[in-house]
Amino acid sequence: MNSIYDAIIVGGGVIGGSIAYQLAKRGKKVLLLEKDRLASKASSAAAGMLGAQSELESDNPLFTLARQSRGMFPALSEELKDISGIDIELVNKGMFKVALTSEQESDLKNMIKIQQKAGLEAEWFTTAEIRKKEPLLSDEIRGAMYIPKDGQVSASRLSLAFTKSAAARGADIKEYVHVSDLIIENACVRGVVTNIGEFFSENVIVASGAWSNFLLEKAGVKLDTYPVKGECFSVLTNRPLLEKTIFSHGCYLVPKVGGRIIVGATVKAHTFEQKVSIEGISTLIEKATHLLPALKETEWEKAWAGIRPQTGDGLPYFGEHPAYNGLFIATGHFRNGILLSPITGVLIADIVERKANSEWSAFRVDRSINTIFS
Amino acid sequence: MNSIYDAIIVGGGVIGGSIAYQLAKRGKKVLLLEKDRLASKASSAAAGMLGAQSELESDNPLFTLARQSRGMFPALSEELKDISGIDIELVNKGMFKVALTSEQESDLKNMIKIQQKAGLEAEWFTTAEIRKKEPLLSDEIRGAMYIPKDGQVSASRLSLAFTKSAAARGADIKEYVHVSDLIIENACVRGVVTNIGEFFSENVIVASGAWSNFLLEKAGVKLDTYPVKGECFSVLTNRPLLEKTIFSHGCYLVPKVGGRIIVGATVKAHTFEQKVSIEGISTLIEKATHLLPALKETEWEKAWAGIRPQTGDGLPYFGEHPAYNGLFIATGHFRNGILLSPITGVLIADIVERKANSEWSAFRVDRSINTIFS
Amino acid sequence: MNSIYDAIIVGGGVIGGSIAYQLAKRGKKVLLLEKDRLASKASSAAAGMLGAQSELESDNPLFTLARQSRGMFPALSEELKDISGIDIELVNKGMFKVALTSEQESDLKNMIKIQQKAGLEAEWFTTAEIRKKEPLLSDEIRGAMYIPKDGQVSASRLSLAFTKSAAARGADIKEYVHVSDLIIENACVRGVVTNIGEFFSENVIVASGAWSNFLLEKAGVKLDTYPVKGECFSVLTNRPLLEKTIFSHGCYLVPKVGGRIIVGATVKAHTFEQKVSIEGISTLIEKATHLLPALKETEWEKAWAGIRPQTGDGLPYFGEHPAYNGLFIATGHFRNGILLSPITGVLIADIVERKANSEWSAFRVDRSINTIFS
Amino acid sequence: MNSIYDAIIVGGGVIGGSIAYQLAKRGKKVLLLEKDRLASKASSAAAGMLGAQSELESDNPLFTLARQSRGMFPALSEELKDISGIDIELVNKGMFKVALTSEQESDLKNMIKIQQKAGLEAEWFTTAEIRKKEPLLSDEIRGAMYIPKDGQVSASRLSLAFTKSAAARGADIKEYVHVSDLIIENACVRGVVTNIGEFFSENVIVASGAWSNFLLEKAGVKLDTYPVKGECFSVLTNRPLLEKTIFSHGCYLVPKVGGRIIVGATVKAHTFEQKVSIEGISTLIEKATHLLPALKETEWEKAWAGIRPQTGDGLPYFGEHPAYNGLFIATGHFRNGILLSPITGVLIADIVERKANSEWSAFRVDRSINTIFS
Repeated sequence: MNSIYDAIIVGGGVIGGSIAYQLAKRGKKVLLLEKDRLASKASSAAAGMLGAQSELESDNPLFTLARQSRGMFPALSEELKDISGIDIELVNKGMFKVALTSEQESDLKNMIKIQQKAGLEAEWFTTAEIRKKEPLLSDEIRGAMYIPKDGQVSASRLSLAFTKSAAARGADIKEYVHVSDLIIENACVRGVVTNIGEFFSENVIVASGAWSNFLLEKAGVKLDTYPVKGECFSVLTNRPLLEKTIFSHGCYLVPKVGGRIIVGATVKAHTFEQKVSIEGISTLIEKATHLLPALKETEWEKAWAGIRPQTGDGLPYFGEHPAYNGLFIATGHFRNGILLSPITGVLIADIVERKANSEWSAFRVDRSINTIFS
Repeated sequence: MNSIYDAIIVGGGVIGGSIAYQLAKRGKKVLLLEKDRLASKASSAAAGMLGAQSELESDNPLFTLARQSRGMFPALSEELKDISGIDIELVNKGMFKVALTSEQESDLKNMIKIQQKAGLEAEWFTTAEIRKKEPLLSDEIRGAMYIPKDGQVSASRLSLAFTKSAAARGADIKEYVHVSDLIIENACVRGVVTNIGEFFSENVIVASGAWSNFLLEKAGVKLDTYPVKGECFSVLTNRPLLEKTIFSHGCYLVPKVGGRIIVGATVKAHTFEQKVSIEGISTLIEKATHLLPALKETEWEKAWAGIRPQTGDGLPYFGEHPAYNGLFIATGHFRNGILLSPITGVLIADIVERKANSEWSAFRVDRSINTIFS
Repeated sequence: MNSIYDAIIVGGGVIGGSIAYQLAKRGKKVLLLEKDRLASKASSAAAGMLGAQSELESDNPLFTLARQSRGMFPALSEELKDISGIDIELVNKGMFKVALTSEQESDLKNMIKIQQKAGLEAEWFTTAEIRKKEPLLSDEIRGAMYIPKDGQVSASRLSLAFTKSAAARGADIKEYVHVSDLIIENACVRGVVTNIGEFFSENVIVASGAWSNFLLEKAGVKLDTYPVKGECFSVLTNRPLLEKTIFSHGCYLVPKVGGRIIVGATVKAHTFEQKVSIEGISTLIEKATHLLPALKETEWEKAWAGIRPQTGDGLPYFGEHPAYNGLFIATGHFRNGILLSPITGVLIADIVERKANSEWSAFRVDRSINTIFS
Repeated sequence: MNSIYDAIIVGGGVIGGSIAYQLAKRGKKVLLLEKDRLASKASSAAAGMLGAQSELESDNPLFTLARQSRGMFPALSEELKDISGIDIELVNKGMFKVALTSEQESDLKNMIKIQQKAGLEAEWFTTAEIRKKEPLLSDEIRGAMYIPKDGQVSASRLSLAFTKSAAARGADIKEYVHVSDLIIENACVRGVVTNIGEFFSENVIVASGAWSNFLLEKAGVKLDTYPVKGECFSVLTNRPLLEKTIFSHGCYLVPKVGGRIIVGATVKAHTFEQKVSIEGISTLIEKATHLLPALKETEWEKAWAGIRPQTGDGLPYFGEHPAYNGLFIATGHFRNGILLSPITGVLIADIVERKANSEWSAFRVDRSINTIFS
C-alpha cells in the first residue's frame, strides 16, 4: 500500500513546485504529481519578468502581494542555489515601461505619481535619458516609466530549482501521473485517484494552472477561469543590445543572460492550443523592432506558446474549498505566475497549516458567483 | 452554435485517423479531436512492423483480422499517396523470426507447420540459408521462420497520411482539445464536452488508446485495459546492414528507408511514464548486437518510448457500448495498432453504419467481466 | 593502404550525391567525402521548387539545361524509390508566378509569349481564374503566369535518395572527412589529402557548393563564386490552404506533403553565416501573408538558412580544370541546385568518362577572367 | 577597410574564449573567429570535471599547471557571473577515484602517498566509508582515492561565459568565419585570410583544438597532434543518486545540477567523425551501471561526441611559432581543456604581452621532432 502523505500537490509547474518546496522545508511529507513533465507548460514558457510595478495597478489587491513576492527573490535565489545548485538567473537591472503615444505618456506619468505616493520607486525618463541608458532604443519612444526594482529571472530554471529543492528536502515527485478523481469521505479529502493507482493524504492542493478545473469539477467546483495563450520568441546576439527589460503595449523585450532576448507575448483567450501562429510572430516582430530597430539583425532562435490561467475578475484563487475539508486551490495567476510563485508557496503552506491570516481574503475561492457547489 | 457532426472521434492516433478517413471517405461529416498533437503517443513510437504471422498465434481470434488488415496495405498505400501525397514507406521484404535456443527452434517449426496448414507462407531457414540473405547476422542464430509477407511501414507517416487524407475528404481536425465528458440523453449519445466547448453528434467513437478509460468511465464503463510502455531506439548507417526485419525473443530490428534501423521494444506494464530507462536501452542493445554484431559500429540516433493499450485477454475492443446508443469503442490494440489500423477503420465505420456482421464478436465490448455498467 | 577509386567526389550535398549515384550506376568504384554530415548545408535548406520556367529567362544558357533536368524527375523518382525505398515527394501540380504590379504583369505576359513561342506550356491567368484554382490567394494579385510543369520535390529526401542509392550501388560514403589538399603529379590528379589520411584516384570531382574554392585554391583556381545566404521558414496547417506553388517577387510558397508550407527565400550575398535573422523572417512573413492572408492562422514550425553558391555571370561551372588532368568541378548552382541535380550528375559522369559533347561549353570552368592559373 | 586588431584568435571554444577574455580584460582590441558556432565542438561535449589530481600523474609537467588552473575557478566563477550573468555551475564536492581490482587499489594507494607528500589532499576510503557518503554505489567497489578538491563545472556554460564576458569587455566575435590562410610578411604575422575577407593583426593565436593543424600547415608547422573522439551520454533523475563525481577506469559519472548525471567517456583516436556509436553507448552503460546500479532506473536523456586534441607526448602546446613572429599556438589539451582553460587564457595573454617566464618551457611549440619548418 502507498504511504500516507502530509500533502499531495497536483501540478508540477512553478506554483506546485513552490508549494512543494515550502511544505517540504517545513518537514512535511509531500507528493507532487504532474500529468506530463515538470514545468512543461506555462511555467517554462514565461519570459520571467518580475513586473510587480509594471503589470499591476496600485488599487489591485494583487499589488501588495506582488511587491512582497518580488522582495522574496534575492533571498530565495541564494536558498535555492544552496540546496539545488541551480542559479535562477535573477537580474536586477530594472525596467522601462515605455510610452509611444501621448495618452500612454500621461497614463504612465499618473501611474508614477500614484506609485511614488505609495512609497515605491518609479520615475519618468525622457527619451534622451532613456537613450543614455539604452542607446539602441528607437527615438520614437516618447519617454518611459523607469522601475528600478522590477527585475527578472529564468522561468524554467526557477521552476526546476523549486522541484529539485523540494526533492532534496524529501518530496516525492512523479511525472506522467494523471489525477482523475478525488477521494472524499464525509466532506473531507482523503486522497486522489490516478492512472497508476490511489494516493492518500488529508491535504490535496490543486495547482494545475489552466487545467485546474478538470479536477475541481469532481468536487463540484467550477472556478471562473479560462485559458489565455501567450506566444513568445527569442533571439540571439553576440553584441549586447539591451540591459534593462523594455515593456510596451502588447510587447516586452527581456534581455536574458548569454546574449538571448525574449520577446513576448500575445494574449489569446479561450484556447488550449499550444501552437505559435504566424500572426502572433508577425505582430511581435513588428512591435519589437519598432522599439529596438537593432533587433532586426539578431539571430532567430525559436518560438513557443504557453497557456496561462486567467480568472473572471483577474485575481488568482488561493484557499480551501468551501465545502470540502483539506482541498486547497492555487491557480489563476495569469501572467504573474513566476512573480507570484514565492509568496504563493508560503501562503498556501500557511493555509494548509491553518496559520494564514485573513489578509488574503480577496483571493478566496468562494468569492466567485460562478463557483457552483454540488 | 457548433454544427452537428455525423461522427466525433476522440483520439488522433493511427486508429482514430483510420476511422476518420474511412468515415470521411463514405461522405460523413467527421470531427476528430486530439488532446495533444496528432499521433504524438504510441502511433509514432511504433516501429511499423506488420507482424501478422510473427506476432500472433493462429488460434487467436486476432489472427484472421491481422492477415486481412495486412492484405489491405498495398492498395491503401497507393490510395493515401494519391490523396495526401504521403508515401507510407511500405516495404515487403519479409521477416525472419529467429531461434536462439532449441526450444525456440521447435516452437517455430511447429508454428510453421500450423501456418502452412492454414495456407500461409512460412518456412524454416537454416543458419546458412539465413546468412545467404542476411550475411551480417550472427552465426549463433540456430535458424529462423521466414515469413515473406510480414512487411513494414513508417508508423508516423501512416498516421499522418490517415489524418491528412481524412482532412482532404472534409474531416475537421482539432488538436489540443481535451474531451472531459459525454453528453448523453435517454441512453443515447448526443455529443461531447471539451475544454473549448461542446460538440454535437449522435455517434461518438472513443479511440484514445491507453487513455480511453478516462472518458469511458464517464459512461460507466471500465474496460479491462492497462498501459504497457515500450522503449525503442534507432541507429543510422551509411552501409546497408540488413534487408529484412529480424524478430527475436524480446527484440526486433526493422530496417527502415534511408539507412535507419529501429530496434525495439521493451514491455513494461502499468505505467504511463513516457520515459526511456537506461535499463531498457541496455537490454535492447545487448539483444540487438547479439543478433547483428555489426550494429555496434552504427551511429546512435535517438531513443523514445510509447504507451500501448493492452487488455486483460489480449484482444482489442471493437463495438458499441452495451448501454448507450451511439457510443463506440476502438482500443486495446497493444503492439498491433499499426498492423490493425486499416481493418479497424473499415470495421468501425461499418459498425457505425450498422453494416457490420457478427464475425467480430470476439472483440465485443461487453465480453469482459471487468466491464461495469452504472 | 587505401584502395584506388575510379572517382573521388568532394561534397556530400545533392550535387555530389547525384554525381556519385550516376558514376556508381555506371559501375565505377566511387568514394564520396563530406566534411560535415551528408546534405547538411544548402541541399537540405532548399524548398525544392523545380522552377525551370519560372526562375530562368529563355535566353539564358541554363534554360535548356533546366528544362532537360526537370524532365528527368519522373523517371528518376521511380528509380530512386526502387533502389533506396525513398520517395522524393515529386509533386506536379504546377506553379503560379504572380504579378502584383502592372510592370510585373507586362513582364510576365511577355515571358509567356516568349516561352510559348519556344514550345513551352505557359499561360496567363486572371485573378478570377487564379482564385478558382486557389481560392485563398489574395485578391490583390493582378494575375499570374501559370506554368503547369514546374513542380517540386522534397530537397532533403532527394539528397538522401541520391546518396543511399549510390551506396546501394557500391559507393563508399564517409562523413566528417575534410579534404585539405589535392595530390597532383605532373599536372595530373592522383588523389586527395584528408584529415584521416590520403585517398587515391585519377578523378577528383569538387562539388562542395559555396565551399568549393577552399579546395580549388590548392590547384591555383579561384572561381568567380560567392556565397549567398537564403533564409526560409515553414508552417503547418491541418486545413489545406494551397495546391500549387506560388512564386512572387522575393517570396515563394511551396505546399509540401503533410500540411507543411515552405516560405522562402531571402537573398543575402557574401556571407557564410548560416543564421536566420529577424529581418529575414519579418520580410518573408510580410510578403507571404500579403499573397496568402490565411497563412496568418497557420502554425509556425521552424526557420533555417542555407548558403548557396552563386557565380559572377550567374552560370554554374561544369568541367575539367584547364591545367590539371582529372580535376573536375561542379558548382555554382545558386538557387537551382535541386532542379539541376539530375542533369549535373549525368553530365559530370559523361565528362569524367570523356563522353560529353561540346553542348555545355557555356559552363566551362575556364570562361571566367577571374580564374587564375598558377 | 577592416580595423587593425591587437590580437586575432582563431577558434571559439573554451580555450579561444578564455584567451579572448583575458586579452580583452587587459584592454586589448580582440577579434575572435569561429568557423562554426561558438563552443560547438569539444568544449560543449565535455563533462566538466576538474580532475587535476585524478587525471594526472604528479611527475607530469601538466600537474602543477592543472592544480594552479583548478585553483583559479572560485574567483573566476564570480568574475564571469558578475560580467556576463552566467553561472558556470562550479561544484566543489570532491571526487572518488575508485578501485575495482587489487591492482587498481595498490596503484591508487601509491598515488595517494605521492600526492600527500606533495602537500595535496587525498586519502583512501574503504568501501564502507564510501557508502556512508554515497550509499547507492556498488559494493563491488574495493575502495577509492578521495580527492576533496577535484570539483566540476558546466562545460558549455563556462565556454559561453568566457565569450560573453570577452564581448562585454569589447571583443568582436564572429561565427561561421573560416580562416583559410595567414598573412605573413618578413616572417611576421600580419593577419588572416578568411571566407569573408582579410583581418589584420600582428598577433594571431591559433586555438582551434583538434582542427589547429589545418591552419598551422600554412605556416609550415605540423604539430604532433591527433584527434581523439570521446562519447558521452546523460541521464535524468528526480531522485538524487549521487553527490560526488565517480571516476573509474574508462568511465566517470558526473552529477550535474538539476538531476542530470553525465556518463563519459570513450577514447577513440584518429577520427573526426563526430558520431556516437552503439558500441560506445553499450560500453559506457555497462561500466556505469556496474559502478552505480541505480543508474538503470534513470531516464535516458541524450548522447553526444566530441573531438579532443591529443599530442604525441600528451602535453599541450603553448607558445609562439619558432619561425614566425606573432603566431601563437594553444592546443593539445586532450581531456583537460575545461580544467586548463583559466590558466591557458592567462598564460597565452602573458606570452602575447611578452611577460611569460620560462616556467612553461615543457609546453614549447618547438619541442616536437614532428614539427617541420619550411
